[in-house]
Amino acid sequence: MLDRLYLAVDLGGTRVRAALGNEHGQILRRQEVRTERDYAGAARGHWPEGSEGEHIARQVGDLIEQVAGYRLAEARAIGVAAPGPLDARTGILYHPVNLTKDDLPLKDLLEERFGKPVAVHNDANAAALGEWRYGGHGPTEHLWYLTVSTGVGSGIISHGRLIDGFNTTAGEIGHTVIDLNGPECACGNRGCVEAICSGTAIARAARAALQTGQPSSMLQLAGQVDRVTAETVVQAARQGDELAQSIFFHAADTLGAAVVNAIHMISPEIVVIGGGVTNAGELLYGPVRERVRTKTMALCGQGVRIMAPRLGEDSGLAGAIVLAMRQSEA
Amino acid sequence: MLDRLYLAVDLGGTRVRAALGNEHGQILRRQEVRTERDYAGAARGHWPEGSEGEHIARQVGDLIEQVAGYRLAEARAIGVAAPGPLDARTGILYHPVNLTKDDLPLKDLLEERFGKPVAVHNDANAAALGEWRYGGHGPTEHLWYLTVSTGVGSGIISHGRLIDGFNTTAGEIGHTVIDLNGPECACGNRGCVEAICSGTAIARAARAALQTGQPSSMLQLAGQVDRVTAETVVQAARQGDELAQSIFFHAADTLGAAVVNAIHMISPEIVVIGGGVTNAGELLYGPVRERVRTKTMALCGQGVRIMAPRLGEDSGLAGAIVLAMRQSEA
Repeated sequence: MLDRLYLAVDLGGTRVRAALGNEHGQILRRQEVRTERDYAGAARGHWPEGSEGEHIARQVGDLIEQVAGYRLAEARAIGVAAPGPLDARTGILYHPVNLTKDDLPLKDLLEERFGKPVAVHNDANAAALGEWRYGGHGPTEHLWYLTVSTGVGSGIISHGRLIDGFNTTAGEIGHTVIDLNGPECACGNRGCVEAICSGTAIARAARAALQTGQPSSMLQLAGQVDRVTAETVVQAARQGDELAQSIFFHAADTLGAAVVNAIHMISPEIVVIGGGVTNAGELLYGPVRERVRTKTMALCGQGVRIMAPRLGEDSGLAGAIVLAMRQSEA
Repeated sequence: MLDRLYLAVDLGGTRVRAALGNEHGQILRRQEVRTERDYAGAARGHWPEGSEGEHIARQVGDLIEQVAGYRLAEARAIGVAAPGPLDARTGILYHPVNLTKDDLPLKDLLEERFGKPVAVHNDANAAALGEWRYGGHGPTEHLWYLTVSTGVGSGIISHGRLIDGFNTTAGEIGHTVIDLNGPECACGNRGCVEAICSGTAIARAARAALQTGQPSSMLQLAGQVDRVTAETVVQAARQGDELAQSIFFHAADTLGAAVVNAIHMISPEIVVIGGGVTNAGELLYGPVRERVRTKTMALCGQGVRIMAPRLGEDSGLAGAIVLAMRQSEA
């Protein structure tokens, strides 16, 4: 029997990835480009028209065509993992900070162009679905996927389904307050997890510390203060820089407290922590595991495992295949 | 057609309530006694033997017999709402702080005594089930029940089912950290919601303030510092006492931040806030609503309603009927 084919997109602020996949979550072909907010469409040969959002939608559509090739007609549905805030019911992205200032009706635009069912969900929810279905985690019904990169987000699988809640927005752990008097967050709260633990927050904390004149090798590594990134902090911490170590530890330790919060609140079996900041390896996972080991209430923590994504960077694409499958059955 | 009958128990640290109910969640008979940790059984005429836990189980059993009367044989199953931590799979209570220092295999003890299926779940989860099924909230699939009394707990209904997670412990918002540098909590963390917003925490904060000699009518109302309770704080706040107002506001405002956290994390449609501390009325609901109105991200907060329990004190008993129904069908 022939494979059932699906198209999957992982749309991010810096790149767009697309894949042709089958019902086993296998990726048959893949393609990747840089996200362009003034994309004209290579074949069209004219200057950009339309909004930033429309450009992005056009680029996503062209990439889908490229990766599908002659099998486009065969593909049953399209799934898209996209940055939030977005409404998965309507497939509208509400000016996602790292992508565009426009509201983008991505589901409608892609359905119109391709005449296929399209499902759009936020990237953390998609990654949770992907890891759960195709990550080889066994028959668990309770997997929580936490991603720590530019921002912090999560997706909840509980009792064998994606828990996205009433507004399809569940999992926004990045915008839960963990330090009432902590740093301001873009969402209007203080002390959100994202404002302390994201790559952006780590870089900001390092720059602020350097600006007070504290000695650190981070300055040499980055060249100048405003070029310091989370990677700089990790690199310096690994080389023994005490300021970098203390800044990164605070983020990782606080992330551990957030993981304990989530274990207490939703009781997952498997906690998968992915995203760019996890490139720090044990520098991140170590303090998180220690918090979970020492601060989780006994019964709540029983049998809980913490791990890196088995699908690595492909969790989102795999989840987009799941979204497409669900949509074609709906 | 005759009613299907179920037995329901709401076991608390100060009182035990039992009811005979039907499949519509209607309570046909009810009975209530004070919880006794050295309960001998009125009819037995001997001095207490056995552990504290066994005494409690015996008292629960006797109360079930009393409320069931001649219809005991008819009742299909027993549901119990009990204080956590407990494992709803085994029905074992793990030395719940406000009840007993023993581990109490309540499900096994009651099944042995009555020869009927027994389901035990924690009181906040039971109350969530009760409000959802019988609270007249319409066809919502997403209801979150938060209780604020001696402790703080919650129960999550999402996508039309109780979300208790892998260890049946989900909903423990009382033990999520909201203030990294906040007061110590019995669970071993700092700045848990329960350590700031519970009745116990409010009373503790008031006593601490009075001990520093700050002027307040709370002292007159309570007679002496160690008699100050959360009720004293509420009473004094209503009479215009500024210290009491500021102490209660901090608890209510922080509870509001916890509600925003939960809205971001699980995206409920209906937020029901119950428990003894809600007797404070608008003093509590006001700051919570204000936080939710000003600090919830737009899409996450769309259409969310905050309200008091429609079933009042009976949410737990109604939920215990639901537990019994589920158990008899299992």
